[in-house]
Amino acid sequence: MKAQITLVGAGPGDIDLITLKGVNALKDADVILYDALVNVKLLDYAPNAVKIFVGKRLGNKSNTQDEINKLLVTAAQKYGHAVRLKGGDSFVFGRGYEELTYAEKFGITTKIIPGISSSIAVPALAGIPVTHRGISNSFHVVSATLANGKLNPELQLIAKVDGTVVILMGLSKLNEIVHVYETIGKQTTDIAIISKGSLPSQQVITGQISTIKSVYEHNKVPAPAVIVIGEVVGLRAKQRLEQLAYSLQ
Amino acid sequence: MKAQITLVGAGPGDIDLITLKGVNALKDADVILYDALVNVKLLDYAPNAVKIFVGKRLGNKSNTQDEINKLLVTAAQKYGHAVRLKGGDSFVFGRGYEELTYAEKFGITTKIIPGISSSIAVPALAGIPVTHRGISNSFHVVSATLANGKLNPELQLIAKVDGTVVILMGLSKLNEIVHVYETIGKQTTDIAIISKGSLPSQQVITGQISTIKSVYEHNKVPAPAVIVIGEVVGLRAKQRLEQLAYSLQ
Repeated sequence: MKAQITLVGAGPGDIDLITLKGVNALKDADVILYDALVNVKLLDYAPNAVKIFVGKRLGNKSNTQDEINKLLVTAAQKYGHAVRLKGGDSFVFGRGYEELTYAEKFGITTKIIPGISSSIAVPALAGIPVTHRGISNSFHVVSATLANGKLNPELQLIAKVDGTVVILMGLSKLNEIVHVYETIGKQTTDIAIISKGSLPSQQVITGQISTIKSVYEHNKVPAPAVIVIGEVVGLRAKQRLEQLAYSLQ
Repeated sequence: MKAQITLVGAGPGDIDLITLKGVNALKDADVILYDALVNVKLLDYAPNAVKIFVGKRLGNKSNTQDEINKLLVTAAQKYGHAVRLKGGDSFVFGRGYEELTYAEKFGITTKIIPGISSSIAVPALAGIPVTHRGISNSFHVVSATLANGKLNPELQLIAKVDGTVVILMGLSKLNEIVHVYETIGKQTTDIAIISKGSLPSQQVITGQISTIKSVYEHNKVPAPAVIVIGEVVGLRAKQRLEQLAYSLQ
């Protein structure tokens, strides 16, 4: 038995948005360590594997990542092939690289299987392309909240770009985000909040920087949510209007 | 027979990096329109479907997208379920949204299935996480070249961010990109060029802004290539050194 670890990105929630390679890893797993954001139906691919939930239940926030690192190594050494299953993609605010480098210090073979990242796919499935010729030639993905709980100061600069800004873990920072955009005069910039993207329970609310706080107050969609800011958000509404215009013809 | 169109992201090249949902769409397809960047082995999922190559052979550059739009609609109307198979993700510089909105004007039902985007997965598979706690709390994906063939002027602002910058379609603009970074004093920033990412023929060259032109002159890796700029590039080298240190112990 050889200890090995495969990091697998599970995608945004829909169980069929995992890759074939990800499914093959699950089928081969002796043990699976999975997060709160992972769709548990994916575990059915590995009926005989040991399953370990490593979400919030572990408790003490500051120790959690250390505990997961150690648990992952112990699991691989004990059972063989350990699959670390994470929501989205492991390298997009997933701390996957920390887990890999920790494990490699124990001489454990590691592999990474990319997942569909919510940062791109959640807007897409809500009808918002992160890029669109003539409207957005770049997109910018940023975590709203730093490890210390504060607003990511990079937002000050990022808010100035012409491209699409995608903000993860930003719902609790909505007022501060709006303030950053208002300060640079972007009151009329389009903004969307996509709650539970890709799942049947998905909800989308949209507005402009100047109105979104009030829109959200009247419809407090739950986390996890992806915030999208930029002209591409308007395409979503435009598309609906065009369809409406067509159906009225 | 009902005309419908599904946009499917094929991922970065490895045939097992397509999603289950993407495979199911291919199996259900009556006709498939595919790009030059798509791994043609994926077409084997649809032995009975009509296959139409819509890559560079179509000729006249300025008309290509219009021709593809029309061909896609005609194919759906003639055969039924048309799958538009694109490399990476259709909404990341894939012009997928243009194809969808064109088709919707004809009352054709459309659907989007996200793909693994090269912008995140190609760096990941080369050992470079686009985000890493304490090093990169954001990443920025930009097309180097605009429709008019010129350098994307947004790079001037984007080069100033602390997070990771991922540049697509940038190999022919390498000198200009380096110049932008040199102008703002980022000579020592790490940079990697990943050629044919995710495929067995993948090659990676790395350097700093001040050295990468010379590195590339000595090893002209072929397109398509993803350029990654930022401190996370250094993790790749660091990881290798740590492994080496471990194996020498």
